[in-house]
Amino acid sequence: MSILDLIQKKRRGLRLTDGEIGGFVAGVTGGAVPDYQTAALLMAICFAGLDQDETLSLTLYMARSGRTLDLSGLPGVKGDKHSTGGVGDKTTLVVAPLAAACGLTVAKLAGRGLGHTGGTVDKLESIPGFTAALPAEEFINVLRKTGVCVASQSAELAPADRVLYELRDVTGTVESVPLIAASVMSKKLAAGADCILLDVKCGDGAFMKTRADAEVLAGSMVLIGRGAGRSCAAVVTEMDTPLGRTVGNALEVAEAAEVLGGRGPEDLRECCLLLTEKLLELAAERDPGAFPADGAARRALAERKLDDGQAYQKLLDMVSAQGGDTSVLIKGFPEAPYRLEILSDRSGEVTRVGAEAAGRAAGLLGAGRRRKGDPIDHAAGLALAKKPGDAVRAGERLCELRASDTSLFPAAERLLREQIEIR
Amino acid sequence: MSILDLIQKKRRGLRLTDGEIGGFVAGVTGGAVPDYQTAALLMAICFAGLDQDETLSLTLYMARSGRTLDLSGLPGVKGDKHSTGGVGDKTTLVVAPLAAACGLTVAKLAGRGLGHTGGTVDKLESIPGFTAALPAEEFINVLRKTGVCVASQSAELAPADRVLYELRDVTGTVESVPLIAASVMSKKLAAGADCILLDVKCGDGAFMKTRADAEVLAGSMVLIGRGAGRSCAAVVTEMDTPLGRTVGNALEVAEAAEVLGGRGPEDLRECCLLLTEKLLELAAERDPGAFPADGAARRALAERKLDDGQAYQKLLDMVSAQGGDTSVLIKGFPEAPYRLEILSDRSGEVTRVGAEAAGRAAGLLGAGRRRKGDPIDHAAGLALAKKPGDAVRAGERLCELRASDTSLFPAAERLLREQIEIR
Repeated sequence: MSILDLIQKKRRGLRLTDGEIGGFVAGVTGGAVPDYQTAALLMAICFAGLDQDETLSLTLYMARSGRTLDLSGLPGVKGDKHSTGGVGDKTTLVVAPLAAACGLTVAKLAGRGLGHTGGTVDKLESIPGFTAALPAEEFINVLRKTGVCVASQSAELAPADRVLYELRDVTGTVESVPLIAASVMSKKLAAGADCILLDVKCGDGAFMKTRADAEVLAGSMVLIGRGAGRSCAAVVTEMDTPLGRTVGNALEVAEAAEVLGGRGPEDLRECCLLLTEKLLELAAERDPGAFPADGAARRALAERKLDDGQAYQKLLDMVSAQGGDTSVLIKGFPEAPYRLEILSDRSGEVTRVGAEAAGRAAGLLGAGRRRKGDPIDHAAGLALAKKPGDAVRAGERLCELRASDTSLFPAAERLLREQIEIR
Repeated sequence: MSILDLIQKKRRGLRLTDGEIGGFVAGVTGGAVPDYQTAALLMAICFAGLDQDETLSLTLYMARSGRTLDLSGLPGVKGDKHSTGGVGDKTTLVVAPLAAACGLTVAKLAGRGLGHTGGTVDKLESIPGFTAALPAEEFINVLRKTGVCVASQSAELAPADRVLYELRDVTGTVESVPLIAASVMSKKLAAGADCILLDVKCGDGAFMKTRADAEVLAGSMVLIGRGAGRSCAAVVTEMDTPLGRTVGNALEVAEAAEVLGGRGPEDLRECCLLLTEKLLELAAERDPGAFPADGAARRALAERKLDDGQAYQKLLDMVSAQGGDTSVLIKGFPEAPYRLEILSDRSGEVTRVGAEAAGRAAGLLGAGRRRKGDPIDHAAGLALAKKPGDAVRAGERLCELRASDTSLFPAAERLLREQIEIR
């Protein structure tokens, strides 16, 4: 069966067989299928969909299209956590060391930011000396030593996803639940963890704008994870407002370190505890003796690890093991040379701080990149003084912007002010 | 607005503006739009459609993407006739000289066969010396001299259609009414005739399997033609059974010559008279003084031109003007060295002769090509002795196959026998 037959089948709304999907993925990975045929099939999938069996087949073939990590030589249960991307979403920086402090081996491959959402690798690279691009052997060494490692997604893993993702980006075929699910899960499966927790963001600053859409995506990804024999769950969390108070790379690492030290903004701490508890629940499925069977007990364990400093110590251990200078976590990061305060022009209650606008504003200040490979300014970004529900007086500070160039302030300020509502 | 924005708009089911479509066609023609983006947009159009305004815009930009023929220097009304393709469909070979004999200037650009349907250019090239690939100036010279010319579609006309057509062929995006309508009509508009008659075939051997689908395509093409200021009409004709008795290039030219001589199979003569009458009706719209206002009078005129030999003489004039040796029309074509007769294994009435099977069988015998550029055997093909409605006795001939190699017979015979039904 040729790729043209596959396109025509999907165009007519018919199911593709496992073998057909395998042939397609092999052709895409090896370059035998021309881009224009792949683009046509991707667009047909956007309209006609893939059922759960087809989605699982696609994901498994993509996961096996390159190297897969074998973590079976490491002790204990191996866990991974993935967020679909948000603004101010530094939960990985908290959950990875926290879950490790609770006894899980946390093997996380992370991405860079693109568009208005940040990326964990960019954030960690705010730490001088920190190396995210680790060979597989070194990734496993760090895991063996500290029980937690956050490395950058390797090009060797799931190469079919890279080809498809790049093509989807330029052919208007990004917004498809089965294609998104297969893209995320192929990388998670190739990365080898036993337990996969998915944090599907929904709202203004997320890819999925509604809770209903987010739940469909979450459900599809969980079925894939379980279909591949992993313990897998998803939570849908709100992303109408930036998570925590900071948006920007070094700012977010510092805020995550605060939460790991038992302090930090309540919404961020709460989200991280929820994710950690769910990840430990998956771990308890794999090894009931090693983790509490009861949700309240798992939560109490996670809270204790935040409050007793062990989670914070895990972060320091991981950063050291990956070559990073931990002094910035203790003494503070170098700050951007310019600050601009946005003050309220009236008194009232803050009712909205648009997450997408905050993400885009941080990007304009230098924290993000427009194209792959653009340099970023790790110190740039913003810190919210007020969040929805907070009272504000006229003249009081709403938000503080930080940049290395004052010419970057006006556009970011305008964008942000339009999306902060006070009533 | 970028091509990516256009793809995303169409993916969401939104209308594209005239300017957007113009930018797309320019980008396709000039090569600035990569094939994978074109493929994605074509597939989105297959699902989300184009409305009539969008289809007209697309067609007009495609028609103007290259050279357009200016026939205004020629005397009288200029007419063109197009069939969407069938099996045994030699109507152009009859209608073009017949309408010319009735006073129309018939300027026809034709294609080659591909798949199971034949092409007028291949048929005419059965005539030794006949040249279909004429420069525009020579096309107009022949028209001035004889009032009728059938030349091959020039690469200079509607180059955007060539790019899109080739891509549609390999991306499963052929079956879309607006894309088919724009493809056909862009070439018709570029070819410059005042009157365009469309023969939309429906049934087993046609691209459109149902009359309803054929009528939708016909309606869309007529609206395009009229929107572009031409006189335009369509007839939907049946293609469940091959038209006439022959399928194959030289065989079909000989059969067309019979009809032009006032003889030939009744179904073929009838279809040609219908098409000619409709074409003259369009001509009467342009120049009421030059053509009969009444349908019965137009039909009588066309019948007279068949019966008095003038239509046949027009064919001879055109073939001579295009370098062809008319002796084959008078004395007969060279025959293929082998014949196979298919005899009926029982007595009864023939109820079906599948047109697609007949087309494919002729192709297997050497009359068609699998890929562009393949050579064809002009003498190969088949002649039906019986058609639906005919009584047949056991042992009587149903069909005769002709080929240059006896090894070609078994597969063609098997295919054909399966699709001839006797009750």
